[in-house]
Amino acid sequence: MGDLKLALLGFGSVGQAFSKMLTEKQDDIRKTYGRGVIVTAISGRSKGTIVDPDGIDLMKVCADVEATGAFDPETKGYCDKNTMEVVAEADYDAICEMTVLNIFTGQPAIDHIKGAFARGKHVVTANKGPIAWAFDELKQEADEKGLGFFYETTVMDGTPVFNLVEHTLKLCKVTAVSGILNSTTNFILEGLAAGTDYDTIMEEGRRLGFVEADPTMDTHGYDAAAKVTALLNVLMHAGITPEDVDRKGIEDITVEDIKAAEARGKVIKLLCEGRLEDEKVIASVKPVEVDKQDMMASVDSTTSVVSITTDLMGKVSVIEHAPEIEQTAYGVFGDVLRVLEV
Amino acid sequence: MGDLKLALLGFGSVGQAFSKMLTEKQDDIRKTYGRGVIVTAISGRSKGTIVDPDGIDLMKVCADVEATGAFDPETKGYCDKNTMEVVAEADYDAICEMTVLNIFTGQPAIDHIKGAFARGKHVVTANKGPIAWAFDELKQEADEKGLGFFYETTVMDGTPVFNLVEHTLKLCKVTAVSGILNSTTNFILEGLAAGTDYDTIMEEGRRLGFVEADPTMDTHGYDAAAKVTALLNVLMHAGITPEDVDRKGIEDITVEDIKAAEARGKVIKLLCEGRLEDEKVIASVKPVEVDKQDMMASVDSTTSVVSITTDLMGKVSVIEHAPEIEQTAYGVFGDVLRVLEV
Repeated sequence: MGDLKLALLGFGSVGQAFSKMLTEKQDDIRKTYGRGVIVTAISGRSKGTIVDPDGIDLMKVCADVEATGAFDPETKGYCDKNTMEVVAEADYDAICEMTVLNIFTGQPAIDHIKGAFARGKHVVTANKGPIAWAFDELKQEADEKGLGFFYETTVMDGTPVFNLVEHTLKLCKVTAVSGILNSTTNFILEGLAAGTDYDTIMEEGRRLGFVEADPTMDTHGYDAAAKVTALLNVLMHAGITPEDVDRKGIEDITVEDIKAAEARGKVIKLLCEGRLEDEKVIASVKPVEVDKQDMMASVDSTTSVVSITTDLMGKVSVIEHAPEIEQTAYGVFGDVLRVLEV
Repeated sequence: MGDLKLALLGFGSVGQAFSKMLTEKQDDIRKTYGRGVIVTAISGRSKGTIVDPDGIDLMKVCADVEATGAFDPETKGYCDKNTMEVVAEADYDAICEMTVLNIFTGQPAIDHIKGAFARGKHVVTANKGPIAWAFDELKQEADEKGLGFFYETTVMDGTPVFNLVEHTLKLCKVTAVSGILNSTTNFILEGLAAGTDYDTIMEEGRRLGFVEADPTMDTHGYDAAAKVTALLNVLMHAGITPEDVDRKGIEDITVEDIKAAEARGKVIKLLCEGRLEDEKVIASVKPVEVDKQDMMASVDSTTSVVSITTDLMGKVSVIEHAPEIEQTAYGVFGDVLRVLEV
């Protein structure tokens, strides 16, 4: 069997970190799986597109992007194809969907994935849009065609959540899920608790990369709602979209609220929850007061947690501690290894 | 392919809970794996032994044990074979080693496992002795013969630790492990911190089942040392025994120590650790002061945690919350499902 051929859609920090990991671990992959993994197409939006069936020199491309912010037009296979053209025409076995998320539609990532499935190709997505907005449809398509469809990265980067349930909690039925999954709100709530004023927190957050230019995706709970939707669609077969989540952000939380909670021995966290009620999955995102002694209270800054309750194995929690971009890259990398096992 | 045939060695609370789970989930198993799982031998020490190649009625046996504390001598296949005779002579595909742990030798569980491997049979063990005292030898034997050898239950019951690394952190190299893995010491330290005197704590602990008749296995760190040894032998290929662990229990911790720590914003926990030093795995068990804000500080009473640091995926923690006997049974159950996949 020849090398597995990947088309990378999106080539931001995750795509670049993934490319480095793939290059470094190529020998390990060959040793373990008996075949290698090459990249035959990269569509990097403003950076340009490269399509080369013989395999792209990833280290050269990363160096070019670091030096100039774009691909070198002299690179073999450099072209102006857009991502949909790459999906429809390039020679690959699997796409790695790493384009920018549209949290309100899941597009164009959903169309990329549909395009790949239509050609009988496997899919790895780091983009949670498709899992939040179109999971059932996409999963059914993959299953019917016997194609790999992997999305570990969409919640807590490469920290095992979906793989945890599928591969280590076999025959368990998930009855409830909860988690703290948004770093920005963690950061803001901690800043307020420490007595820093809102504007200073946001300025510092932007500098550190915790806070987006438009922070409402995080502060109003849209990001958390998309994540809990993805969790529930996969783990509890919820068949919901982010619009079905009872969502409340931290926009109305005041310093007084935080102080009052503290006086009661509590900390305010933006909590994601899903539970079964009359066989239906009920999803919510809202600020809640957590006991200071509770494990959830210790989940601060970029740390995240998902707690999974099952019929056979009680409650298990997984924590990702202060991840860097490599942990996101590992999510994609681990899913590519799954494709090798399909 | 016919049903998978199990020999259960030991029939205490875990064996009984496992038998109930196996009975309840028989249909799910057949649906998912295309074959069932039956029990053809149970060696229950003082309860007696039953060997029946046609499959034992587990619910009847559980009812007998609940009613009389022993097997009914009228049961088909009732006999006086000991565990080693069952291992050597009974008709089975896999043993489930659930006998009483000897923490200083790992015996007789090691001999049970060797006996099963010698006959080309698979092994599931809930007993950590063999993993702490003879892992490399046993693992090599299993690998050479292509036999299944599973031991998820030996640390944190059925909570995924070994399966987590093997199945969800592929190609990751584990560089450090830490954890809080002993409920008894958690319970004693919390009692002391709450102002309860030592004798009252121990009495209450015995009543609740947290404290053994001889508490030194826990208080002096022997149990924690066996667990960290098992973790390191499997996850970091340490090739050590509990004697190699730098071990210190909580026997010298006073109320004054706890109060002094508290004044510094700290909590004392019995911490298990393993790390690489010059390519060698260094293991320790000792009381340490943990920041009150740290996730480790929230791990109290019967809750446990293992944190795993890897080269590719940073640090991931798994928490088991207040397990019941069912979570231990699930560890054995999950490993039996793995045998079905061998």
